[in-house]
Amino acid sequence: MSVSPVLVMGCGLIGTSLALALTDAGVEVHLDDVLDTNVELAVARGAGTADPVESPSVVVVAVPPSEVAACIAHALETWPGATVTDVASVKAALQSVVSGHPGSERYVGSHPMAGSERSGPMAAYAKLFEGRPWAVTPSPEAAPESIQRVVEIAKLVGAVPLQMDAEAHDRAVAVVSHVPHVLAVLTAARLHGAPTDHLALSGPGLRDVTRIAGSDIALWQEILAANATEVRTVLEQVRGDLDRVIDAIGTDTDRLGDVLQSGQDGTRLIPGKHGEQVTELATVHVSVLDQPGELSRLMAHTGESGVNIEDIRIDHELGRRVGQVEISVVAAHADTLVEALTARGWSAYS
Amino acid sequence: MSVSPVLVMGCGLIGTSLALALTDAGVEVHLDDVLDTNVELAVARGAGTADPVESPSVVVVAVPPSEVAACIAHALETWPGATVTDVASVKAALQSVVSGHPGSERYVGSHPMAGSERSGPMAAYAKLFEGRPWAVTPSPEAAPESIQRVVEIAKLVGAVPLQMDAEAHDRAVAVVSHVPHVLAVLTAARLHGAPTDHLALSGPGLRDVTRIAGSDIALWQEILAANATEVRTVLEQVRGDLDRVIDAIGTDTDRLGDVLQSGQDGTRLIPGKHGEQVTELATVHVSVLDQPGELSRLMAHTGESGVNIEDIRIDHELGRRVGQVEISVVAAHADTLVEALTARGWSAYS
Repeated sequence: MSVSPVLVMGCGLIGTSLALALTDAGVEVHLDDVLDTNVELAVARGAGTADPVESPSVVVVAVPPSEVAACIAHALETWPGATVTDVASVKAALQSVVSGHPGSERYVGSHPMAGSERSGPMAAYAKLFEGRPWAVTPSPEAAPESIQRVVEIAKLVGAVPLQMDAEAHDRAVAVVSHVPHVLAVLTAARLHGAPTDHLALSGPGLRDVTRIAGSDIALWQEILAANATEVRTVLEQVRGDLDRVIDAIGTDTDRLGDVLQSGQDGTRLIPGKHGEQVTELATVHVSVLDQPGELSRLMAHTGESGVNIEDIRIDHELGRRVGQVEISVVAAHADTLVEALTARGWSAYS
Repeated sequence: MSVSPVLVMGCGLIGTSLALALTDAGVEVHLDDVLDTNVELAVARGAGTADPVESPSVVVVAVPPSEVAACIAHALETWPGATVTDVASVKAALQSVVSGHPGSERYVGSHPMAGSERSGPMAAYAKLFEGRPWAVTPSPEAAPESIQRVVEIAKLVGAVPLQMDAEAHDRAVAVVSHVPHVLAVLTAARLHGAPTDHLALSGPGLRDVTRIAGSDIALWQEILAANATEVRTVLEQVRGDLDRVIDAIGTDTDRLGDVLQSGQDGTRLIPGKHGEQVTELATVHVSVLDQPGELSRLMAHTGESGVNIEDIRIDHELGRRVGQVEISVVAAHADTLVEALTARGWSAYS
């Protein structure tokens, strides 16, 4: 399916990155922006041409949130054969506005889950979308060919297209993106007024939690406003949890422990790249004589097998001269370890 | 100043990592733990010896928070010549308990700002403390020689010792460590019940914010309980900000913008490694003729100079054929760029 030529409207971080990636993929890319300088910079970076295009197959609207609806309508009207998509972070309200326009069956919303705290065409790079989820949110009226073209765009830039309806998308991003952003901001806001020697104790934990709070303010004002209902719902749930923690701290250790457990369990729900599940572990059991050097010998042989030890536990049975060692390894490698240890004389099984 | 021999009591992540680092630094390290298996594993990793030691110079107490006070008291009593330190995350209450014991002038609290979501001796590594802050919190009664020994321990393992009083430390870690942990937990807790295809939209932002929520529950129950007063104070401030955001979302964009700005500014207060400040930028101004190819030529020459472009702005003055380009670079490199561009015929200054 050919998506050439593509017109990218809006040469900021996302638009220029998209243009760079599509150009690398052999697509003919045209660039447009209200600021001539943004186009100049994008062209200078090799993202495409500033020449006008008569009949784009696909128009990608990558302008600031407040401009998106008008730009989509303009594109549907100006190029009656084009599929039009956008990259805005919130989909349902936008889809609703666009659905009134002639040609709206050619509009299919997108939200590439990619970005950076930096902005503008100089911050762009072609690999921005590689391996990243790309939500495709067609309305029930969307033309199948238009959906296919948008999915193709996502694949060409290395992203993983995930189709869902617009309302589900907005609920999802409230939880996995917008509320995390707010909580990062609230964490960072507490640093004001802290003495320098206090701040000197900062570590990677703090940097991790607050990293995304460095992002563009104006952009996030618009995103949060656009998804206000969903975000407010989740934030109210957070406030409930926060109240529980404030009450439990120092008074009810078990209750506090429940919240901590809930958070830890939550981290295990986050998929790895490309939607893979968290790596499954398996246990290899090895009998070890309770005498000096045995454990070192076992670890040396495990090292030689090339299988990484994820965790290890040792049980010494009272009165017996044999202990059981439990070695946690990546499940797919358990057999390799059992074979390697057995070959070296150990009694091992998984 | 010799700190050998050192006795490390508690062979978990921190104790074993410390022992590995001190051993690498040529210190004679003895190991102890209530669980023989932890000692065995630490010895097998090369962290030191399980042989008893008659007169340690320094005893490092690296046991779980609930055991620390008793362990410190035992050490002060058992080895009357030893300096005793610990690695607990909260200092003031502990110092208060210890101050009643004979020999308490030989106790100097420590808190190495280092760790990992993993725990136990198998997760330990020698470089854990490299470049990390290490709070040293002597009481007013502490013996100078004891303070010196503890500072030396921190330096030997590559950490940056920072002396402060215990109360200041507890206030500091509430803001830069404990509250960020709680907010990471609250973010991750929201993921429960989210459909798989919603979670599929997760990105690095969510992973960054929630990373530390994966840490050991029991440990953090104890840490937060031990610093309950300070943590509650800061969490109440967070709750106030959260209320403001919930009220402002979708209704008062400016107010929401203020909170976002406060967060962004907060991120800039976090020091870089070793307490360095955030990199200072400078602007190099270049005049550019408004004709095709000039900008590309400028960027090519800038690339040849080896100086990285942090940001770039272009001003075209209406009716004039010359534009001004403003290139942001790391301040220390501004002169290099000006020289390189001038040598190539550009009119550049900073």
